[in-house]
Amino acid sequence: MSSATIDIVAIGDAIVDVIATCDEAFLDAHRLPKGSMQLLTPAAADTLYNAMGSARETSGGSAANTMAGVAAMGGGAAFIGQTADDQLGKIFAHDMRALGVRFDTPPLQDSPLPTGRCLILVTPDAQRTMNTCPGASHELTTARLDEDLVRSAAIVYLEGYLWGPDGPRAAMERAVAIAHDAGRKVALTLSESVSIAGRKESFARMIDAGGIDLLFANEDELFQLAGRTDLEGALADIAAKVPTLVVTRGPAGAMAIEDGRRIDIPAAPLTTLVDTTGAGDLFAAGFLTARCKGTDLQRQLWTGAIAAAEVISHFGARPEGDLKAMVAL
Amino acid sequence: MSSATIDIVAIGDAIVDVIATCDEAFLDAHRLPKGSMQLLTPAAADTLYNAMGSARETSGGSAANTMAGVAAMGGGAAFIGQTADDQLGKIFAHDMRALGVRFDTPPLQDSPLPTGRCLILVTPDAQRTMNTCPGASHELTTARLDEDLVRSAAIVYLEGYLWGPDGPRAAMERAVAIAHDAGRKVALTLSESVSIAGRKESFARMIDAGGIDLLFANEDELFQLAGRTDLEGALADIAAKVPTLVVTRGPAGAMAIEDGRRIDIPAAPLTTLVDTTGAGDLFAAGFLTARCKGTDLQRQLWTGAIAAAEVISHFGARPEGDLKAMVAL
Repeated sequence: MSSATIDIVAIGDAIVDVIATCDEAFLDAHRLPKGSMQLLTPAAADTLYNAMGSARETSGGSAANTMAGVAAMGGGAAFIGQTADDQLGKIFAHDMRALGVRFDTPPLQDSPLPTGRCLILVTPDAQRTMNTCPGASHELTTARLDEDLVRSAAIVYLEGYLWGPDGPRAAMERAVAIAHDAGRKVALTLSESVSIAGRKESFARMIDAGGIDLLFANEDELFQLAGRTDLEGALADIAAKVPTLVVTRGPAGAMAIEDGRRIDIPAAPLTTLVDTTGAGDLFAAGFLTARCKGTDLQRQLWTGAIAAAEVISHFGARPEGDLKAMVAL
Repeated sequence: MSSATIDIVAIGDAIVDVIATCDEAFLDAHRLPKGSMQLLTPAAADTLYNAMGSARETSGGSAANTMAGVAAMGGGAAFIGQTADDQLGKIFAHDMRALGVRFDTPPLQDSPLPTGRCLILVTPDAQRTMNTCPGASHELTTARLDEDLVRSAAIVYLEGYLWGPDGPRAAMERAVAIAHDAGRKVALTLSESVSIAGRKESFARMIDAGGIDLLFANEDELFQLAGRTDLEGALADIAAKVPTLVVTRGPAGAMAIEDGRRIDIPAAPLTTLVDTTGAGDLFAAGFLTARCKGTDLQRQLWTGAIAAAEVISHFGARPEGDLKAMVAL
């Protein structure tokens, strides 16, 4: 077993975010539950886009945001995800590489589907409501997986959003097998998608089979996965199944359970709250980067909290400040 | 002569801005004079894009930004400009319409050129250096000019950047003739393009022929056009040729000369300075909107200064705050 040459490789959606502000009435009129993520058909995405306000575009995608954060904090990061050969795909690839994230997945040629986009509506309370048109990002297949890259990373990080469609899920399952054969660790973020019909069972099978070494969830996702809504009971149930469980709790902080030990931390102090998009993504980035640097569990949680605090202080789901200096790993 | 049904129609570049921060060394390495605007070939734009950092995309274009500002302040605005039938073109059109700007120019079908983009590099001192790949925006022609729309506006606003290429210049010259036939006014912003070889003479001919009723310039542009670098002399020379001359002077404020009367104002107070992109565009927006509301010349200048101050307090060349409330017209 050779040693890893890169810290983390992520498999996730390759998405460009289209971010606009709106008021609560707009969400109500379009029947969008605040704070949620919906998958939209291309037609529904066009209808919503036509109705929403003037927007800014920034590269996004949950696991891609996490890799952007890892690179910003000085970690070695790579990303596997499917774009189309179009303008948004070029923007996505440019931004990953400009941040120092290795991104080699070739764009899908002659794709009937464009590069994925996520219409993000931010209300005055800084909550984001996400409306994803996944486009080409769901066309990832096992055949397009760079197996050598997966083998070369200490941690393979999987995005739950991409677990639904058959092609990407098969690619992720293959990545888990490759990683474990090579003696690597596998991390999974549930990404809210556990609430999508049929996924809970599929996640549970993977976890029960020992596929996941490190699980990221927020409280809602934990409750969904555990099938119960008492925090202590849900934590006990899931912690019994994964070596490391990390649960984010928004303003209530975060916790980790590992080797029978539990650490709770409060949220990092905030000066400004503008847009909560990317909070969980950057928490995972901080946690994973600190972990790869060999810090202890408490420092891993704190680093996650600092990175999350930075990203919610401005629009967009990727760091803008000097995150490396902030976390001082 | 029927009365105008819209306040202002602008003819300008349809551009999506690609905004990244950089340090001074990056500008030096790429031989980009800070604060300037360069036209790039597609190949040169790709080279620069590959070298620059992770970016955000927002709709831009000088006169388009001005119309966005007019609409944000409650004025009736329309825009004529050429996009391609691609993703950036759809973003540009969406953002104009979402802001309430009438935008009906059909995208160019099967265009070999994509929608124009401007690679904007912002240094820590908030100065912007612009690198424009005009793409389809220079394919505007007289045939694509909506003559009824031009006739319907109280003011036709022309962007100097678009004055260079033959097709757009011919369309603008036609618009001047239509506007004056209909008893409308014509405004022109020199847009720094007066420094591009060959344009000064062409601008001078249009101004000498009485084509321009209202001229916007910054000090540098005024000096270039006048062919002298003493402010009072240059002002006297040019003010003799246009009924209304408006000169912006950055932190030194702005001035207008009209009917032999001159008003100087200081710059609006600033709390934050982030990115000077769009300062001139939004100054023109404020001035024109106040003018269409029938305010006096001093209020027109102040409104311009307030709108410019808002746009330089954040990244991007279009207003984000509640400009209508700020200017209270």
